[in-house]
Amino acid sequence: MVAWKNLDTLTSFEDLAKTERVNLIEAMTGENGAERVKKYSVPMAEGFVYNYAAKQVDEEVLTAMEKLAEEAQLAEKFEALYNGEVVNTGEKRLVLHQLTRGQLGDPVVADGVDKRKFYVEQQNRIAEFANKVHAGEIVNADGEKFTTVVQIGIGGSDLGPRAIYLALENWAKKNGAFKMEAKFISNVDPDDASAVLNSIDVAHSLFVLVSKSGTTLETLTNESFVKDALKNAGLDASKHMIAVTSETSPLAKSDDYLAAFFMDDYIGGRYSSSSAVGGAVLSLAFGPEVFAQFLEGAAEEDKLSAKKNLRENPEMLDAMIGVYERNVLGYPCTAVLPYSQALSRFPAHLQQLDMESNGKCVNRFGERVSYPTGPIIFGEPGTNGQHSFYQLLHQGTDIVPLQFVGFKNSQLKNDVVIQGSTSQQKLCANVAAQIVAFACGKSDENRNKNFEGARPSSIIIGDEVTPRTIGALLAHFENKIMFQGFLWNINSFDQEGVQLGKVLAKRVLAHETDGALKEFSDLLNI
Amino acid sequence: MVAWKNLDTLTSFEDLAKTERVNLIEAMTGENGAERVKKYSVPMAEGFVYNYAAKQVDEEVLTAMEKLAEEAQLAEKFEALYNGEVVNTGEKRLVLHQLTRGQLGDPVVADGVDKRKFYVEQQNRIAEFANKVHAGEIVNADGEKFTTVVQIGIGGSDLGPRAIYLALENWAKKNGAFKMEAKFISNVDPDDASAVLNSIDVAHSLFVLVSKSGTTLETLTNESFVKDALKNAGLDASKHMIAVTSETSPLAKSDDYLAAFFMDDYIGGRYSSSSAVGGAVLSLAFGPEVFAQFLEGAAEEDKLSAKKNLRENPEMLDAMIGVYERNVLGYPCTAVLPYSQALSRFPAHLQQLDMESNGKCVNRFGERVSYPTGPIIFGEPGTNGQHSFYQLLHQGTDIVPLQFVGFKNSQLKNDVVIQGSTSQQKLCANVAAQIVAFACGKSDENRNKNFEGARPSSIIIGDEVTPRTIGALLAHFENKIMFQGFLWNINSFDQEGVQLGKVLAKRVLAHETDGALKEFSDLLNI
Repeated sequence: MVAWKNLDTLTSFEDLAKTERVNLIEAMTGENGAERVKKYSVPMAEGFVYNYAAKQVDEEVLTAMEKLAEEAQLAEKFEALYNGEVVNTGEKRLVLHQLTRGQLGDPVVADGVDKRKFYVEQQNRIAEFANKVHAGEIVNADGEKFTTVVQIGIGGSDLGPRAIYLALENWAKKNGAFKMEAKFISNVDPDDASAVLNSIDVAHSLFVLVSKSGTTLETLTNESFVKDALKNAGLDASKHMIAVTSETSPLAKSDDYLAAFFMDDYIGGRYSSSSAVGGAVLSLAFGPEVFAQFLEGAAEEDKLSAKKNLRENPEMLDAMIGVYERNVLGYPCTAVLPYSQALSRFPAHLQQLDMESNGKCVNRFGERVSYPTGPIIFGEPGTNGQHSFYQLLHQGTDIVPLQFVGFKNSQLKNDVVIQGSTSQQKLCANVAAQIVAFACGKSDENRNKNFEGARPSSIIIGDEVTPRTIGALLAHFENKIMFQGFLWNINSFDQEGVQLGKVLAKRVLAHETDGALKEFSDLLNI
Repeated sequence: MVAWKNLDTLTSFEDLAKTERVNLIEAMTGENGAERVKKYSVPMAEGFVYNYAAKQVDEEVLTAMEKLAEEAQLAEKFEALYNGEVVNTGEKRLVLHQLTRGQLGDPVVADGVDKRKFYVEQQNRIAEFANKVHAGEIVNADGEKFTTVVQIGIGGSDLGPRAIYLALENWAKKNGAFKMEAKFISNVDPDDASAVLNSIDVAHSLFVLVSKSGTTLETLTNESFVKDALKNAGLDASKHMIAVTSETSPLAKSDDYLAAFFMDDYIGGRYSSSSAVGGAVLSLAFGPEVFAQFLEGAAEEDKLSAKKNLRENPEMLDAMIGVYERNVLGYPCTAVLPYSQALSRFPAHLQQLDMESNGKCVNRFGERVSYPTGPIIFGEPGTNGQHSFYQLLHQGTDIVPLQFVGFKNSQLKNDVVIQGSTSQQKLCANVAAQIVAFACGKSDENRNKNFEGARPSSIIIGDEVTPRTIGALLAHFENKIMFQGFLWNINSFDQEGVQLGKVLAKRVLAHETDGALKEFSDLLNI
């Protein structure tokens, strides 16, 4: 049995806090630095490495972290999770998103069903459906093929699938895997749906309505918006729409949809990219084989997350360093900086994944914790960010730990040599340069040109953004966040913080307000 | 003469720090809250109001702020700036971006030129050029009209113009002002340029190369990338490309361009949206009249920024509240949350504008300051963010001040009534609800469902996202950031923090590295 304890009650955490701080400038300068880069590197799946040489760790700190990982029973907690224990204690639910891509432990039976079989079955049903759409066996009323797929969903039903679609769109075009263009409608702002509808040919579009509960107001509103548009175009909406939902939702058996594919309560929205939520739109866009490769990549990384030894487990290590930075060094933010334009919306997905999971101030027993938990996460692709907010990262008054991601190769292999190097080489040179610039800084008598350094960063380095690598990368962050939740002793799998706003918004719409809320409603002409 | 002093040397700052903290929950509950919403509101240009009822201020705090604004000579410093004083002391330059949209004070003569005339002249030259392109007088080699404009630029030459283009694209389509589709190439990642080139018809595309110095490596690299593509398509690149640069740059008089339009050293990249940098691409996309309206909106807001009275000056007030939150209350981040899908990339632009301007740890005399300066800025449009990182904002361990933006009307006026309300009403109801939920919270015996409240926010409320309102909104934030720089006594107009990374990247590409930098270069296969 695992014991759920607050971080500040663990002896090994106190010991970790007492270790000597690493002087990053000294550590990363000269041969010392070269040695660290070789040493502080751990292999990930799909050819990735996680390199943490430029983090404020050394043997003493790492040894203390190993003890904390053990005392906090991180490996045992993950094992309990993937073997089907009720880890989402607030909602009394299992946490099974890893099971959508592989089985790490015992068969997990819930509601009388082998859940691995259930997820595979949904994946297969989606594959069959997508293949029929691509083959022209499922067509529109005029017998013509669908060319566009439009996901209607918000939060977890939008950010993850959208980030992955954008990551693979050009790869798929280059590699003959591009089947249908995908678009996304998420915001309740009517301009979002209008703009998407104006940009597509609705007669050849298939809409994927995604809502686990079947009650998400934004999503149902946008569904009606789309149905109106289809009707106005003289089309039968039920022939243009599929649903991804839970089997118990009102959408599950409705005649309003061509087909319904299922997820369940054991998969949180923000963890649903590898379930039917990502599966439907990505299989339609790129073919089921591509989606299967994405799942394989994620499954390979999950296996590494199950390793007991901190220094062989990239996710546990990354999580531990993050907690050290948050709770010992006191840094409140983390920037995620992928050096790949394909990952343009990956930071936005990670922002949700991390902040919605670990932005909690009560532990899993409902007690207020007295230490900081989840950090603020933000980021943009490099090199764009270098010409934007990096100024603050280098010379601002606060230190922001950094998480770089870099790839040796471009996706499209279309490149140009300028001043003796390709664009891809320039991209990689920049990320290498940034790590060292942040860590070591540079003294200058003109303090305006002075770089204090000692800004910690890690980097995940891979070969190329492909379905398999994006799967592994996603699993890395999902599992990192899970381990951090374990360390903070919080429930990373609920999101009670979204409720109050919903309740008050309903009250505004019902005109049942007073005080400030009524005044703001008036100002906004509601 | 104005006196440049550190914030912590000002008596009135000490006094502000000593004022009693406002209990936001009490203040915003009941009739009290309603009164505050009515009272703590200041008109902006173009029908906007800036409402700060849900910020931790009261009469005592505001009076202290008024004194600080006076002692810090905020109005006088802005006056000095717009009258042409060398406010960018590090680079010994004037700061003239406001002059691109209007003249607030005396004529400003620099390098023997009346700068207002110069900027208007460039605007007029661009207008003439754009009109000729739209009229089919400037055409491609086959005598056909250009249909697409592609901006090649990074940082300030990308984020602002892109955010504004996205903000107005659908408005322009709805209102008959849409002339040409715009695309943007920024990242040195070759996949960025490749993907854009694959998505357009190059034979009918006009490229705008934007680099003030004419030496930005990413931009010149992408220019070569594009020229290769044009050549491969059998096209004469010089007939498809214009330049926006300074008159002294190597691009200014080159035969490689159809035309060149000018900015100068007195306009920082991140402040260049209202100069030729935004002017060329936006005038081509939407017509010069639309760009002129955008400038008018910005000029109207600038006029309000020149007001001496803190409580009548929305930018000075917003700046002051931000400094109070950063330096008295100790909050390190600010989230910008526009409830409008049209503003999807506006937060990314503000992130640059703010973090690159005020992410500095030395004052304008090159001395290390001992107080925090620019905060971390991040944000996504609502309601999307509600289903993402708002969990942390509501229930996380750290307090993040919030800056909402809301509009009474949608752009496209295409809407649907579901459950008794339109989508636009739902959107507005949500932002109103969030302000009150964040401020007041809600007690619950189940601590997991408990909302502690006391999360401060302000809101800017407008009618609709139009050229004029987006201009005013941009000027609001530009000027807010300027006033904060004045308070922190830093130079908000240079960016020395971007240099070290550039130097080291060059060294990597020249293979002149050792130590950690060499190891990272090897790992990345450079």
